[in-house]
Amino acid sequence: MQIDASNLPALAVGCSILGAGGGGDTDVGLLAALQAVESFGPVPVVDLDDLDDEALVMPCGGIGAPLIWIEKIGAGDEMSRVIPVVERLRGAKVAALMSAEIGGSNGMSPVTWAAHAHLPIVDADGMGRAFPEVPQVTMEVAGISASPAVMTDERGNVVVFEGIDGHWMERMERTMAVEFGGQSYSSEYQMTAVEARRATARGTVSLAIRLGEVVLGAEHDPVEALAGEVDATSLIEGKVVDIERRITGGFVRGSATIEGLGTDAERVLRLEIQNENLVALESDRVLAMVPDIITVLDSQTGRAIHTERLRYGQRVTVVAFPCDPIWRSDAGLELAGPRAFGYDLDFVPVESIHDA
Amino acid sequence: MQIDASNLPALAVGCSILGAGGGGDTDVGLLAALQAVESFGPVPVVDLDDLDDEALVMPCGGIGAPLIWIEKIGAGDEMSRVIPVVERLRGAKVAALMSAEIGGSNGMSPVTWAAHAHLPIVDADGMGRAFPEVPQVTMEVAGISASPAVMTDERGNVVVFEGIDGHWMERMERTMAVEFGGQSYSSEYQMTAVEARRATARGTVSLAIRLGEVVLGAEHDPVEALAGEVDATSLIEGKVVDIERRITGGFVRGSATIEGLGTDAERVLRLEIQNENLVALESDRVLAMVPDIITVLDSQTGRAIHTERLRYGQRVTVVAFPCDPIWRSDAGLELAGPRAFGYDLDFVPVESIHDA
Repeated sequence: MQIDASNLPALAVGCSILGAGGGGDTDVGLLAALQAVESFGPVPVVDLDDLDDEALVMPCGGIGAPLIWIEKIGAGDEMSRVIPVVERLRGAKVAALMSAEIGGSNGMSPVTWAAHAHLPIVDADGMGRAFPEVPQVTMEVAGISASPAVMTDERGNVVVFEGIDGHWMERMERTMAVEFGGQSYSSEYQMTAVEARRATARGTVSLAIRLGEVVLGAEHDPVEALAGEVDATSLIEGKVVDIERRITGGFVRGSATIEGLGTDAERVLRLEIQNENLVALESDRVLAMVPDIITVLDSQTGRAIHTERLRYGQRVTVVAFPCDPIWRSDAGLELAGPRAFGYDLDFVPVESIHDA
Repeated sequence: MQIDASNLPALAVGCSILGAGGGGDTDVGLLAALQAVESFGPVPVVDLDDLDDEALVMPCGGIGAPLIWIEKIGAGDEMSRVIPVVERLRGAKVAALMSAEIGGSNGMSPVTWAAHAHLPIVDADGMGRAFPEVPQVTMEVAGISASPAVMTDERGNVVVFEGIDGHWMERMERTMAVEFGGQSYSSEYQMTAVEARRATARGTVSLAIRLGEVVLGAEHDPVEALAGEVDATSLIEGKVVDIERRITGGFVRGSATIEGLGTDAERVLRLEIQNENLVALESDRVLAMVPDIITVLDSQTGRAIHTERLRYGQRVTVVAFPCDPIWRSDAGLELAGPRAFGYDLDFVPVESIHDA
């Protein structure tokens, strides 16, 4: 498989859907990736099983507030500064890039960076969705070290972090991303292919392309077509009536209120947001919660609307579907369950809430 | 020459005087250094002329707000984490440590770190005084690169910075020091001995010891004894009547007001502070200005009072004396003259102001 102009639009749609509202706007990411494959050629997608055991896999992504990413766009060559530093620190050539998070623009950027660097990307990522914090990756659950992390900005500054743990890695990288203007680019959790096979969400690049193709190819009801593909539950169909959004500490935080229409009339859903959609509430009842994936879809097109693009009056369908099973483990929930985000809730899988 | 318990108290007094109110409290720095030489033995002081041309000289210091340093003290082994990283990045063994700034505790800490690391220190520093910002060093004036900078905190986090210029190095290191709790430890501008011979303020460790010995050894008037040694002008003798001080952006900023006593009765002096004493004003008249060294002395003991120790009622003598000549060059004034700190003043040497 390779990524080129023929499947990049589907990848963008799929990354948006998997992003749970976060990971950065894919419109900008798609334009950058189309330009990169036009200039440098298609990007091969390799399965981790096809790499040598000792091949070095380099996760990468943007770090910052997605709202800023819409106007403060990348140059496309950021990882060309990061790769040689990683290679020097690891004492090995990078064999392939990998999305740290498949969700949103962070699922697209590795295509751009890989095209520039003439490297393949692997059919896997570190989340199977998007999450706001650096250590909220499957590699952390699997015990891979985040260090050394290598970060750069659009000016050419390069910073290498050796953190004592994932918490401090997050604090250090976040404060530096804020100083850089709310957006920067980094690699953490570099590993060998043999490590990556057990420490990543696998097959997520091809999954994203498939979801995009389903939505783009649906003849009548793209939302329904998608729901069938990922086993999604529709939480509400309605209209965005209120948005509260602010940038604080390098994150977008806030909430969105959706009033039901049609068969959902009289119902009101509230989404709590920290870069991603974290919890969906109807009055006091929780309809879905992180780490399951809550995505706001345009009711007409089936495309996901990122948190930074939500606005009054949009006709939307909010869906929720199961996260990668690793996040439902004890270690996964500790890192990225409701309590990791300050919600005093026991995790209940979305399918259990709605089958009850 | 070597540094041990016999001359450390004099070094502390001298570093305070050269610090222009900044560089961190020497009481804490002295205790740490006494402990270190007791545990690990005396620290040799070497002249740059006696090192091999290619010997690697590693400047080091604390970065943060001196006010915090009084309570959030170091462990003494911080550079033992930094040295191996510098050696790996430079591909050479560190031959000697050097104070990035001789002023205040930053003139003492290299003794502590050198004792731990069984290394000598060189009889030189990067300022000949104290300054608030990372690139305000003689090495920057001489065109030595600040990169790679290596920073650590008391927890064990290590960060390596490759900045595009001194301005960005300052921004990156400052924001990280704030995230670390307002205090951290770093090395920048590593260089060979042949570079250091033309890029540093030389002989400043022995100068600090000599100033300390003059003050501690004076039989009657330590202030007068010191003034003779460094060609200092007394700006006022009086009492501290007002202090305004706040910590913002990783700096201590504020001002101090001193009312004259005795022959200076009716006079009022205001000191403007950013970690260091920057400008001394009497009404609209400037009596001394950065980069010349303005130091507040205890009128009785002749010891310097750091900006973070100033308080109402202290009986003080404010003196000013010439900085290292490198700071009076065009490049030096651009980096650390009055305009570098936001004062719309042409630099006039302190001796010209008072000889007129």
